[in-house]
Amino acid sequence: MSLTPLLQELIGALRALPGVGPKSAQRMALHLLERDRSGALTLAEALEQAVERVGECATCRNLSEQEQCAICEDSARDAGVVCVLESPVDLMAVEQTGGFNGVYFVLKGHLSPIDGIGPDELGLERLFARVDAGQVRELILATNPTVEGEATAHYIAEQLQDSDVNLTRIAHGVPVGGELEFVDGGTLAHAFAGRRSLKRSVDE
Amino acid sequence: MSLTPLLQELIGALRALPGVGPKSAQRMALHLLERDRSGALTLAEALEQAVERVGECATCRNLSEQEQCAICEDSARDAGVVCVLESPVDLMAVEQTGGFNGVYFVLKGHLSPIDGIGPDELGLERLFARVDAGQVRELILATNPTVEGEATAHYIAEQLQDSDVNLTRIAHGVPVGGELEFVDGGTLAHAFAGRRSLKRSVDE
Ligand SMILES: [Zn+2]
Ligand SMILES: [Zn+2]
Repeated sequence: MSLTPLLQELIGALRALPGVGPKSAQRMALHLLERDRSGALTLAEALEQAVERVGECATCRNLSEQEQCAICEDSARDAGVVCVLESPVDLMAVEQTGGFNGVYFVLKGHLSPIDGIGPDELGLERLFARVDAGQVRELILATNPTVEGEATAHYIAEQLQDSDVNLTRIAHGVPVGGELEFVDGGTLAHAFAGRRSLKRSVDE
Repeated sequence: MSLTPLLQELIGALRALPGVGPKSAQRMALHLLERDRSGALTLAEALEQAVERVGECATCRNLSEQEQCAICEDSARDAGVVCVLESPVDLMAVEQTGGFNGVYFVLKGHLSPIDGIGPDELGLERLFARVDAGQVRELILATNPTVEGEATAHYIAEQLQDSDVNLTRIAHGVPVGGELEFVDGGTLAHAFAGRRSLKRSVDE
């Protein structure tokens, strides 16, 4: 056996990274030990610091080192338009389009009764409280266009049917069955422009 | 800006990993923070432990946590046949063929005057001392079939022309210009079987 126990541990630990199989984990471990030991220590420190100090924004549940995230604190953003997303990765994808000037609410998942994920786990009370307080003019439901994402959007829309908030769902452009984080910026911008209301009109 | 400073540091640090660009570093960082914080801490610890405790074998320069590596300590291996390689990754590739029962000497590089890498940096004194002490029957030069690898093999062969050791070079099968670590096991085994002597015969 040519791998030392600590090397084997390191290779195993590197497999926690998404997209890293046994072969690339081995190459990464050897690369760090042979050619970039200071890079390895910097990475270890960065991991520890991030795990210890990056929490979630008290308002929107986005990743944040402060009580409030930079977006919620930015007075140039329109706090009356709230985009509801499944994860911080999706938030980043929307931010990178540069076309959205509202704020966010990050569910950190979607409704999934089988996994015990209900409204509480998604922090929906907090979102509904913002709506009830009259702080929100429009709620853009940008959950993934998957079965679970649609069900989650549907649930939120049902809960808010009687409120005054404008409820919209991003629509055109995002491929059905796909995930927001893999959609290009142009498609996403298009999806935002084509959003439609989920409120039942009175004569419906 | 939707990334916190610590997240940006973590993403930067992840790029020390070979094959990881800005986009995958971002996905890795978010995955760890959102879904696998204990995996992140395990990875940090594994990195620190490996950097601190994995050194090199005093005999063959392979990565080792002990004074001697497991291969040099294995009495079932033939210490009279020494395979000279550029890196531990190459060693691992040869080990994985399962067809070599000798021991190794890892140069950790190749001769490269332009980068200030000469015989000293490759530990060649240590290798030559083993040959001079009569411990080696055959020295298999398995440096990469690149210009530098060939030059390094040539240099070692020149230095040992007057010794009694059998000097061989792996030959058939390894694609010229390629690197050992990317060659499949069958090709490598073939290359070992087809090795040829580098000693000039008397009547040459
Ligand atoms: Zn926030
Ligand atoms: Zn050794």
